[in-house]
Order: sequence, then C-alpha cells, then structure tokens
Amino acid sequence: MQFVKKDILDMASLSVEEISLILDTADRMKEISERPVKKVPTLRGRTIVLFFYEASTRTRTSFDIAAKRLSADSISISASTSSMVKGETLIDTARNIEAMNADVIVMRHSSSGAPHMLAKRLKASVINAGDGTHAHPSQALLDMMTVRENKGTLRDLRIAIIGDISHSRVARSDIAGFTKMGADVVLAGPPTMIPRGIETLGVSVVHNIDNAIHGADVIMMLRIQKERQKGFLFSTEREYARVFGLSKERLRKHAKDDVLIMHPGPVNRGVEISPDVADGPYSVILDQVTNGVAVRMALLYLVSGGVRNASSD
Amino acid sequence: MQFVKKDILDMASLSVEEISLILDTADRMKEISERPVKKVPTLRGRTIVLFFYEASTRTRTSFDIAAKRLSADSISISASTSSMVKGETLIDTARNIEAMNADVIVMRHSSSGAPHMLAKRLKASVINAGDGTHAHPSQALLDMMTVRENKGTLRDLRIAIIGDISHSRVARSDIAGFTKMGADVVLAGPPTMIPRGIETLGVSVVHNIDNAIHGADVIMMLRIQKERQKGFLFSTEREYARVFGLSKERLRKHAKDDVLIMHPGPVNRGVEISPDVADGPYSVILDQVTNGVAVRMALLYLVSGGVRNASSD
Amino acid sequence: MQFVKKDILDMASLSVEEISLILDTADRMKEISERPVKKVPTLRGRTIVLFFYEASTRTRTSFDIAAKRLSADSISISASTSSMVKGETLIDTARNIEAMNADVIVMRHSSSGAPHMLAKRLKASVINAGDGTHAHPSQALLDMMTVRENKGTLRDLRIAIIGDISHSRVARSDIAGFTKMGADVVLAGPPTMIPRGIETLGVSVVHNIDNAIHGADVIMMLRIQKERQKGFLFSTEREYARVFGLSKERLRKHAKDDVLIMHPGPVNRGVEISPDVADGPYSVILDQVTNGVAVRMALLYLVSGGVRNASSD
Repeated sequence: MQFVKKDILDMASLSVEEISLILDTADRMKEISERPVKKVPTLRGRTIVLFFYEASTRTRTSFDIAAKRLSADSISISASTSSMVKGETLIDTARNIEAMNADVIVMRHSSSGAPHMLAKRLKASVINAGDGTHAHPSQALLDMMTVRENKGTLRDLRIAIIGDISHSRVARSDIAGFTKMGADVVLAGPPTMIPRGIETLGVSVVHNIDNAIHGADVIMMLRIQKERQKGFLFSTEREYARVFGLSKERLRKHAKDDVLIMHPGPVNRGVEISPDVADGPYSVILDQVTNGVAVRMALLYLVSGGVRNASSD
Repeated sequence: MQFVKKDILDMASLSVEEISLILDTADRMKEISERPVKKVPTLRGRTIVLFFYEASTRTRTSFDIAAKRLSADSISISASTSSMVKGETLIDTARNIEAMNADVIVMRHSSSGAPHMLAKRLKASVINAGDGTHAHPSQALLDMMTVRENKGTLRDLRIAIIGDISHSRVARSDIAGFTKMGADVVLAGPPTMIPRGIETLGVSVVHNIDNAIHGADVIMMLRIQKERQKGFLFSTEREYARVFGLSKERLRKHAKDDVLIMHPGPVNRGVEISPDVADGPYSVILDQVTNGVAVRMALLYLVSGGVRNASSD
Repeated sequence: MQFVKKDILDMASLSVEEISLILDTADRMKEISERPVKKVPTLRGRTIVLFFYEASTRTRTSFDIAAKRLSADSISISASTSSMVKGETLIDTARNIEAMNADVIVMRHSSSGAPHMLAKRLKASVINAGDGTHAHPSQALLDMMTVRENKGTLRDLRIAIIGDISHSRVARSDIAGFTKMGADVVLAGPPTMIPRGIETLGVSVVHNIDNAIHGADVIMMLRIQKERQKGFLFSTEREYARVFGLSKERLRKHAKDDVLIMHPGPVNRGVEISPDVADGPYSVILDQVTNGVAVRMALLYLVSGGVRNASSD
C-alpha cells in the first residue's frame, strides 16, 4: 500500500489502513535508532522546517532528531524570532517558508486549526505537532505504537484516559485513534474537566478513577496543565493527587497485572502520578519518548513519498 | 572570470562584472533547489556562522538553507545568547568565531558599518546580511535576479521604489545595484521619508506615487517599518495606504501591462500594498524569496573560492 | 591505551594517563580544523545533545562545531525553551533526552554537581560544560593543550592564576589539572576573592600580582564576573585594574621573556587585562579558542568509544 496523504493533521482524517502503515513503518524506523550509526540517507537533500509558535522541547527535539536520522536538513523557526513580531500573517510566513522550497512544515500553534489552514493553501506537506486544544496526532500515534508493541494489538483493549480531558489535545487524538483501531476508551476526571457529550465519540465516562482503572489494559494519565488552569478547576494539587492521582496503592488494588502506565509528559510527579508509579515496572513512559522519534521518522518519510523499505537503505 | 572578493559588504563595492557573475551563479544554484535532492557537496566541511544581532526569520533562514544545500555546517549565534551580555566587544566576539576556524561569517547588525569593521580585521569572509540603515546587498541581488529572470536584462528598465526610503537599507542597496547595472531608478514617498539630495546617487524623485508608477517596469514597494517610526512620520496607516499604498485600481490606471510588483517582505497587507495586489498576477514577491536562497548559495560559494561549475557537482 | 570513562565531569576524576590521551587526541583533532574540508565521518549517526541551562556562546558554539566536524548530529536545547518551564525536573528532562537515543549529553548548569547527578543515572555519556562554581573541565583541558603546545610540557612550569578565584570554575579546574600534571600553580587576587585554605590543593597564594607574575611561565588572567559580584568585592573597575589588572608596564617589569598570557574569555578589556596585552605578542588567548574546538572533538570522540586514529579517517 502506498501512502498518499500530503498532510498529517489529525487522527480523524487517517484511515485504519493509513494508521497501520504508519505504525508498521515506525516499527522499522525504530531499528535505525538502535544502531550505533543511527542514520539512513533516505531524506537526504529534503528541507524540513520546524515551525513552533508554542514553546516545546520534547516534541520539537523529537522531530529534529527524526529529521536528522533520515539525513534531512532541518531548520527551526520559533515564534519569538519570527517575522510575526513585524506583523506578518501566519499564512504569509508559511508561504515564505514554502517559497524557500521546504518539503515539509512541522507546525505547533496555540490556535486550533492553524495547521489545517496552512495545509489547504500550501503545496508543502504540513504535519501538525499540536494545535490549541484540538489535535496532536504524532503523540497519539506514538501512544498507539507503544501499546501495540506491548500488547500485540489495539483491538478490544480497554484504554483508560484520566485527567483534564477538556484542555488536552493529546486526549482528543488518542480517543480518535484508539477507538478507530477497535479499542474501548474510558475517560475519567473531575466533572469540570470532561466535556459534556463526549460520549458521542464512542467513549464511556466515569468520574471515579478506580472504576476507570478496573480492568484497564492501559492507563493513560494526563498532565495537569498548571499554566492553563489558573487554579480554579481544582482546589489544590494535593487534593487532585488524592482524588485523581495514580498511586501505587490504587494501582495494586484496582489494576490488572499486566497493565501499562503511560503519560505524554512532562510529568508532574506527585500530582497526577506518584513517582514510584512513573518509574515503576508497569510504566512505559520512556518507551513513549523513544517511540516518538520512530513515529516522527515514519511520518516524515511517508509524507515525503517514501515507498521503499526504509530499513534496507 | 574568477571571483576574488573576500567579503560582500555592499553593492557599491561590487563591480558590474562581479554582480553579473553572482547573478549567473545564482541562476545555476536555483536549479539545485528545484531537485528532489536539493543538496550538493560543494561546501562540505566548511563552517559558516550566522551571527545575527537583530531578530530575523527570513534572512537568517534563507542563509541557513543556502548553507545546508551546499553541505556546509551552519552555526547560528543570536544576540540574546551571545557573550555580548557579558560585556564582550563585537570585534572580540568575531575574532573568537574566526579562531574556531569559521570560513564565512554572515552578519546582521543594527549599527551601520559593523560588518565592514569586522571584514577589515578578520581573515574569514564576512557577508553583510543587513547593517543599520546602510546596506542589505543579498536583498538587492535577489531583487536584481528576480527582475533579470523576468525581463531578460536590467539595462534601461524603469524601477520605481516607493515608500520609506530614509530608513531602508533595502532601498539603498537596490539603488546602488540597479543604477550600476544600467537601470533608471525613480523614488517616491512622503517628503519626510526621502533623504534630501539623494538625486546625487543618479536617481530621480517624485512625491506622487502615480507619477512613479507611470511607465515603470518594476514597482518595488517598501515595508512601512512600524517599529522604527513611532507614528510621527505619517498620521495613520489608513492615510498612508490612501496616498502611498499600491491598490489594484492605482495599478490598473497607471501601470504598464507587464509590470512586476515586488516587496522585500514582510508585507503589511492593506498598508503599503493591498492584498489583491500582493497576491495578484503581477506579483513576484514569492519569487524573490525563492531567489533569495539561490543568491545566498551563490554568495557563500563565491566567497569560499568556488570556481567550478556548481551545477555539475 | 583505550579510554574507558563514560563521562567527563571534572579534572579530579581524570588520571594523568587519561589527560595525556585527551591532549594527544586533541592535537590530532586540531589538524582536521586546519584543512579546507574540516570534517571527518568519525561520529556519523551519533546524536549529541547540547543542554545549556546557562547562557553561553563560546562554549556551546565550540561544542557544536566540534560535533559537526566529527559528522555527529547535534541538537541544542536551552533552558528558556525547555520543559523546565512546565515544571519537569532536570533528571526527567535528561531521561527523556536519553530515551531519544542520545549518545552524549553536553551540559551546562548553574548548580554545582548537576552533571554528576545526571551521569550517575544515565547510560548516555555526560560532558560537563560548566557547573556552578565547581568545574569546567573542557576549559582546563584546552588551557593545558595551549600551554603544552607552546612549552612542550606541563611539568615544573610556574602557572600564575590571577583574579576572582572564588567564583571561578575555570580556576578550580585549572588548579586540579595543572597540579596533577606536575606544574606549580600560584594564585593571586584580592583577599576577598581567594577561598581560605585553598593551599591544601597544593597551590601557593600571594596577594600581590607582581609577586605572582615574577618567574611565571604562564599568566592566566580570570574574568571579573560583573554579573556575579554586584560590586561589593572591589570598589571600582578602575581600582581593580590598577591593583590586579595586567598592564604592559607590569608585564615588562616582572614577567619572563617567554611568558604566555592566557584568559578564558570573554575579556573585559581595561579591567583585568589591558588591550595591548590581550592583543600583544605574548597573548595566546585566541589559540585557546582554537584549541577549545580540538579538545571538545577529542572528548566527544573518546567518550563515544573512539580508538581508531582519528586523523586517518
């Protein structure tokens, strides 16, 4: 099967076949990062622009490493240094990047839909690296890769996603991806942090974390985004940890023996997850980071028209 | 002809032959950016330092991409991260860069003449990427390349440059370059924005934009630099647009059928140029951006002693 | 001899044999930077992360150039863009970098001991690029390389280190390195700037700069770190220059004919050193910068398990 999408904007617009192809490709890409010489010439001479309007270390670094491991040239542009301060519109800036013969624009933006707007107007490929509260498809794909790697399949698994669903583009993309691949998704969190009517997306909602954990194959804890909340959604961090935090005790009481603990990072240790759980035997949090590079290599490769077997390069 | 200049500091110091060689080389470099594998090994192992004391996205990115397409190693240093905060002088910082065996230093600085001072004291090549209100030679060269590409020649063309001439290093370099190559340059703008006595540079001045446009082969609109003007030169942006902005109507009434519309960017849409003109059929604004990479590849190549036919690499 | 250290944390933990191997390797690496094609494929496909929690131009740039000359992929992360603003701990951030299969983490941090903490917990190599007031081993090694290059040996040389010893990680690493290699180190500076009991490290202390200079083979002037001192240690810069600054006159009166003048940079001209001395015939300040790249190439090469003769690549 050949990949024909120009852009990767959200999970909703990817088919089951496309997702499977991405995950298969990512599995092969992962091998490259395990070699002493972690580099293949696949995208040599391609220009990849990392265009980040929101601060990001891990996602930007992950894409940057992914581009370099495929021998592409990667160029970082951040909001603070960009012409935005001179009053240029987003689309003008993007057209300028394209005019420099950029092949792929990886974009993070605080406005939901910004990458979609660019994708429609540009011939260059656009990969959404997180837009507002809307989508973060590469994160969902690395989550799915990590689960599939450990469980062999995504079908019929019970995935519990716990925390601030309302503000989380990770949750939105995970819901779209995991349900599409046949998993059952259950959400838990404070009522103020779960959007009304989200059950229409084919998920179930509980307000008690213990119920969500019960029988779950995967527990995905979300980050409490302190900088977005300004304190009014929950009284204190300590209170949040007591009611919705994942502790060793809670895990021992309610979780399955082979549960996977995941977190998109950065972790607030002692708030949404206790340190002994984050670093414990069920945690695959660092595997998620490792797989993030592989997924991003796959995405860069596939939108660039890659069809050859990457690992044979 | 071999290129023997160590530095590219301004248009005044380049001969007609040198300018022609740069433009010819840029034409060949442009082909490289149109290939799937946009990279040649020409400057492999060379160290190019991008040393920017003023914020810049497009110029810095353009040089960065140019360096990478020639396989050079490019290193970015910006004022905010530099030792300047520790009180080191500019020349000391530059000598340090040179001591790391840098081959080319590309420099932007808010003080006119800063790159010339460095060039005199360093053995490394210095390319001026914009100094104060003085010069921006790579911009003038990409403008000349874009005009030549469309008109076949620069000789005897009528080039109208419109806007804030006084604060514009782009205008200064364009005037020097286009007149040297035999074009006729006419300037228009508010009297407060045109330096007295500029006619001695061999240009003509009108204060009515319609007169400037009339018969022009090229209309170069300058950016109203809001951050430099603090509002006292013109009453409002709307007023500026009405009197000196380039609208579709003004274009239809006064311009030649094959006129080229240019702008160094970033564009203030609706101020110095209306959106339908900026995006219209006469606009070559994005070609300027594309050619910017080609011109900068040519400059990096030529100051590095390049004499081989670059496109044959 | 094979190099078996995973990390380079400070001079104290390096043996005489290891230091000699580093300096020998750096001598060979230096040749690479003197070629037109300043690049060898030695570390192709290795991922080197430059993780700087303190502003730095010269050290970061030096490591970046070193990595690129060895064909490694280098990724810069600075504090301002890092997840630290999201409340992630240092060790979590570092584990994430490691999970992306980074081979070497080069780290600068304002807290003494931060790189040691990382080194203990990570499988990736850690190179300390300056931690608090503790250590700056690559600076000491480049100082030693520069002296050895000029004097043929380090043994029995008299090295005078002058200035603010208390706040200087450079001084600490130089003391450890030079004394280990058999040199005699004498310190001079205002009493408030010399830690009590430092003689136990095997150095001598004088409070008169003329006495320190007398008979010295090397005079290492330290930077007066204005940003750290807040003015209370010395009355004025002019007063400091008069009492502890290195002037041409003082040099002529007291120094040996073949003395070397060194400074870690950035230089405060006219404060700790007069301009004519900094740029004079005894100064090897820019050689230190050149050798810095060579030393960092050697360190990256050696911690990456390099055993082949680098210059034969």
